Order: sequence, then C-alpha cells, then structure tokens
Amino acid sequence: MRILILGGDGYLGWPTAMHLSAKGHEVIAVDNYLRRNLSREENCEALYEVPNLQRRASLWKEASGHEVAVRIGNLCDWSFTADIFQEFRPDALVHYAEQPSAPYSMKSREAAALTLQNNLSTTFNVIQAVNQFAPECHIVKLGTMGEYGTPDIDIEEGWIEIEHKGRKQKFLYPRQAGSLYHTTKVLDTDLLWFYVRMWGLRVTDLMQGPVYGVETDENAGREDLYPFLNYDELFGTVFNRFIVQAVAGYPLTVYGKGGQTRGYLDIRDTLQCIRLAVDNPAGKGELRIFNQFVETFSVNRIAEVVRKSGERLGLKVEVKSLPNPRKEMEDHYYNPAHTGLIELGLKPHYLTDETLDRMMQLVMRYRNSIVAERIFRGVKWKA
Amino acid sequence: MRILILGGDGYLGWPTAMHLSAKGHEVIAVDNYLRRNLSREENCEALYEVPNLQRRASLWKEASGHEVAVRIGNLCDWSFTADIFQEFRPDALVHYAEQPSAPYSMKSREAAALTLQNNLSTTFNVIQAVNQFAPECHIVKLGTMGEYGTPDIDIEEGWIEIEHKGRKQKFLYPRQAGSLYHTTKVLDTDLLWFYVRMWGLRVTDLMQGPVYGVETDENAGREDLYPFLNYDELFGTVFNRFIVQAVAGYPLTVYGKGGQTRGYLDIRDTLQCIRLAVDNPAGKGELRIFNQFVETFSVNRIAEVVRKSGERLGLKVEVKSLPNPRKEMEDHYYNPAHTGLIELGLKPHYLTDETLDRMMQLVMRYRNSIVAERIFRGVKWKA
Repeated sequence: MRILILGGDGYLGWPTAMHLSAKGHEVIAVDNYLRRNLSREENCEALYEVPNLQRRASLWKEASGHEVAVRIGNLCDWSFTADIFQEFRPDALVHYAEQPSAPYSMKSREAAALTLQNNLSTTFNVIQAVNQFAPECHIVKLGTMGEYGTPDIDIEEGWIEIEHKGRKQKFLYPRQAGSLYHTTKVLDTDLLWFYVRMWGLRVTDLMQGPVYGVETDENAGREDLYPFLNYDELFGTVFNRFIVQAVAGYPLTVYGKGGQTRGYLDIRDTLQCIRLAVDNPAGKGELRIFNQFVETFSVNRIAEVVRKSGERLGLKVEVKSLPNPRKEMEDHYYNPAHTGLIELGLKPHYLTDETLDRMMQLVMRYRNSIVAERIFRGVKWKA
Repeated sequence: MRILILGGDGYLGWPTAMHLSAKGHEVIAVDNYLRRNLSREENCEALYEVPNLQRRASLWKEASGHEVAVRIGNLCDWSFTADIFQEFRPDALVHYAEQPSAPYSMKSREAAALTLQNNLSTTFNVIQAVNQFAPECHIVKLGTMGEYGTPDIDIEEGWIEIEHKGRKQKFLYPRQAGSLYHTTKVLDTDLLWFYVRMWGLRVTDLMQGPVYGVETDENAGREDLYPFLNYDELFGTVFNRFIVQAVAGYPLTVYGKGGQTRGYLDIRDTLQCIRLAVDNPAGKGELRIFNQFVETFSVNRIAEVVRKSGERLGLKVEVKSLPNPRKEMEDHYYNPAHTGLIELGLKPHYLTDETLDRMMQLVMRYRNSIVAERIFRGVKWKA
C-alpha cells in the first residue's frame, strides 16, 4: 500500500513510518519540524538528540534495508499539500500532523492561536486533498480519548444511540475536552464527520490515550532510531515524564488529588493499532471510531508504579502533590469502552515491571543529560 | 449598556445596531465589508444599493438622533480586535461577524477555506479579547438551527440529558450540520463551550432559523436604512429570494421534493430576541442556548404562500421542482423546541398575508433592478 505519514518526525510518526515500511508498505513521511521548533523555543528539548528526519530515514535504510521517503513542508500550505497528494496518490494516510501539547495550547493567546490554526488547517487541507486527488484514500486520523472528557456515564466508542421521548437516533458521542489542544481534535472530528457525510470519505478516527515507551520491534537496540523522549510539562507524556523525574531525583508531581484517570498504552500497541486500521480500511462514507488504549490508571497509581520501579533499581523516589494548575476533575467516574481494536486483532502489551524497569534503565544511561528546569513550569488553565 | 455589534454592516447587523441604539444603548458597529466584497466578486449584489456603514450611521443620526459609532476592520486581525475591546470595554457584544452563506461555503475549496478561517478566527479572537479586556462582557453569539441538522428525535434548546446504562449526564445536544458554513457554527459552539468552562465566560448562543423581511420599527418608510435584500442563491434567504423570483416572473425553485422543513422568523423578531438576550445576560460561566424561530415551514409551503401573495397582487407565479443540488433529507421528522425566548418575553410576528404582500410590493418597486441571472446557479454539495 502507498501510505503517507503526516507528522512523520513525531514521537509516534517516526516509529509508525518504520513499522509500516518494515511491513512492506511504500511510505512517505511528511513533517515541518513544528514540534522540534516549539521544543527549542520553549527550552524543552527531548532527553537525547534525535537526528533529523532525512538522516533517520538513511539510518533506517542502513539498518533494515527498508525505505522511508521524506518530504519537509507545511501541510497548512495548500500548494505543498496538493503537490504531495498529486505525486503520491496514497491508498492510506496516517494523520499525526498537529500541535500535540495540551499545556502548550493553554499557555498564551499566541500558542492557542497557533494550535487552532495549525491543527484545523492541516485537517482541512488533508480532507480537500483526498477529495480532489485520492478519493478512495483511507484517512487514519489520530484523535484522543481526551475529546470525551470525563462524563458521568460510560464512554462508548465514538457513537451513542440516544433514546428521547419515544424516538431514537445514533449520534457522535458528545465531546467536551479539557484543553484547547483536545478541543481542536473535537473540531477535527466535526469537520471529518461533515465531509464523510457529504463526500463519502473513508475515515478511521483513533481516540488514543497517552502513550509510553520509545522502544519498538524496529528500533530495539538502535538508540539512533528512537523517537523523542520528552520529559517536560509541555511535550512529555506522564509515564515518560515521571520516569525521568524518578531518575533525576525530582519528586513526581501529582496535580491535586491524583485521581485523574485515563486510558494508557505502550508505544508498540500504538503501532499495532495503526497497522490494524490500515490493513482493515473503513468503508466508503464511513467514519469508524475506535478507543485506542489498553488499560486505565489514575495519576496516583502511575506515580506508585514508577516509584516502585525506581526502588527496584536503587533510586529513592518521592511523590509530591501540587496545587492543580489545570481545570479538571481530580476524582471522577471513568468507564470507557475499548473492544473495537481487540476485535480487529490487537494483542495488548499491558504494563509490566519489566517494561517499566527497562525504560528506567534507558533513562538512567542519559541521567547526565536531564535538565531539571525543564520538568515543571505550571502552565495555568485559567488565564 | 456599551454594546459592540460585530458584523454591523450585515443583513441583521445593521438593523440590530439601529434597534439597540434606539433603545438607548451605546453602540459600535464593526465590519470589514466581507459580505459586500463577496457579493460583488460573485456577481450577486443586493436588490437595491445600500449606503456604506459610515454613511448609514449618519443617515440614522439625521433620522433618529441616535448615534452608532463605526469601526472598519477585520476581526481576524488580533491587533484590530484588541484595540476595539481596549478602547470600548463592552458590557455586551452581538457576534454576527461570519461568512453567512451555506452554498458559498460549498462552492469551492477556496471558499470553504475562507469560511472556516474567517469564522473560527473571529470567534477565537472575540473569546480572547473578552477574556483579556472585558471578562464580564456578555457574548451574544449567532448560531443557527442548521447546527442540529434534521435528527429523527425532538430537537431541544441546545442541551440534552442522556440516560445511558443506568447513569445520566447533561450534554450539548449533538450537532450534525448540513453545510460547511453551518459546521463552522458547530465549531464555534465547541470553542465557546470550552472557554465558558475554563474561563467562566458569559455566553448566549442564539440558534436562529432563516429570517425574512427588511422592514423594522426603526427603518419603516426609510428605504435608505433598509438592510441588504439579496435574492441570489448565495446570500438570499429563501423567503426573500422567492418573493423576488415571483416579481421577476422566475419560477420558484423548489429543490427535490420540497419537504425540507425549517424554523423561520420575521426580522423584527430577530431584533426582539437580540434585545431580550442583551437585557437578560447569561450568568458567569453559563452557555445559555435558545432556539430562535417562531414557526416552521416546508419549502413547498413557502412556495405556496409566496405564490398566493403574488396572485393577490396580480402576478402569475410558477413553482418548479429542480434536482436537489444539496445533500439533505427532502422529507423528514422535525420537532424543535422553542420556548426559551417566549419565556423571556418574545411576542412573535407570525407570517401574515399582510407581511408577505407588503414585502412583495416593496420588491415590485424595484422590479427593474432585478438581474435574473443572479437567482440560480446550482452550487453542488458533492464535489
């Protein structure tokens, strides 16, 4: 299959590009280095240096014999987007090309404007390019479990049948996200659902939870092929961040009561899910939605398992509660469905001591690179 | 009260500016002439010439003694928006500043991009400016009944309580709009609801149906103070358009079966609703939603009443069914609630023969200005 990876330089984009090329697909990775540039501007680069995308493609070819083509440019720019689609006419695309940080999107008006403009424009251009140049192309879109927020009823997989005054209709499950970043994904969903109805696009929306880990089948033992490991408040996901904090001797920063519960997954499961979606395309005119995570944890529980892993490796790890800079429920009902991807064949990697300890050991090798001032900043949700 | 009218040059913006200034409010009308410019580019200007906004403010002052201040500029431009809010620190604002045409938003990629970018950016800048410069300002936002689409269950006023597997929660009523324009209003709602929750904004979202008429208490007998009367497919609302078609001897163009049913209102009721919303602000942290229409009609019924009005005035009016260029249901369940504004004090002007005949007579005076080629164009929903 001919597959475009949009945002192919990212934490998940690059592992996806390697994974799909290893499976024999023809892959082009597209990126404009937005996230690298923002990390530099915000003084929160990743734990170790990551070669640029073209260099990584060369290293990957040397290591595996597989090719990943690279295009550097901005998908908010229509002529760049149109050129890529006209040249490549993809059978499928994986759309990661968005500003991915919730705290970044809340830190200032300028950052919020960038997030809204960037994320909506890329999605809009992707929709228009598919319609114009590759109408059968299967759009695999990364949504987020955060679109749903934390409602007091069970979260279904994207849709819900509402019975009201003796009549029934199936609707998109109502979304109410907790940051502007997450809200841009809600807007993406609205836009995709509209054009699916109007133009008969094929779309899979993967409502992903926070991901942990950097090692996959493709890059095992090749640290030059690892994706970014961010440990800062802006771009670091909570597991990765806590592990770096544990190694740095920086108390694990639990916001408020720590009962905030979300669905998590191992980076290897992200790759499985993407592949399963690509191998089993959505139908014509179908918006197919899966909740992409394998198990739920509260922040307190994450702090606890990271603390224990640290202890096993001889580290003394402290856990500290901070006043919550976010506006969110710290103790809530959370029961999201997640059977669709399992039915498609996902074999979950549940979190084990071994996985945690292996990550902790990786970070310990980079102990001297940790810049403590990057860890906490306290971006406030309320202006 | 100090009130900003954003989109103050528009079909409803200008009558609103006159109405609120006549009620003693201090009013600034803001516009960038987007709609005038698009009408010219698309060869579909209104039936009669309308003086520019500054000229209209002068004419209104001469006629009534009331002042409407005018600022010309683009609310997508943050520095312009910030200046207005800093200077004026409004108590309330009425936000009409959007590209308002569904067919325009579907006619090309460029037009869709303009609609998405313009509508989202104005709403985003308004939210940011209120938060930064006038946090108590009551945002009165024009939504549209079209956000709901035509679901097979009753449409409530903005919210719905969902009972699911023995638990309950109130959500935004699910929206699934029928054009990109209407979808941008769905995105506006998502954005407003997010920042209401985060920042405690005060917002009233008026889900308005199509409006008819040009005459109000303020401009009666003063045609130089009438708003635009568009009769083209892009900017003409269906009643106004059919009346012009009747006068022009152009068959009334019913799309498909003509069973498409919507909620309509007289322009005088738009003004009442806006005033009632302004006089009774939403609470801090409240997104209050009203369905703003007074009665429902199918397209067939509208064609019928316009035909009869024409006959009373000696015109022979033909009704013609065309293949539907839109993607919509032509025969559907439609039962939207609309009690909130009545409870607030709205006294509806239901459609009467007199109202219709009066409009028909107005248009007959401009019979020679009608450009028949402007009426139909057949913008297709499916690319």
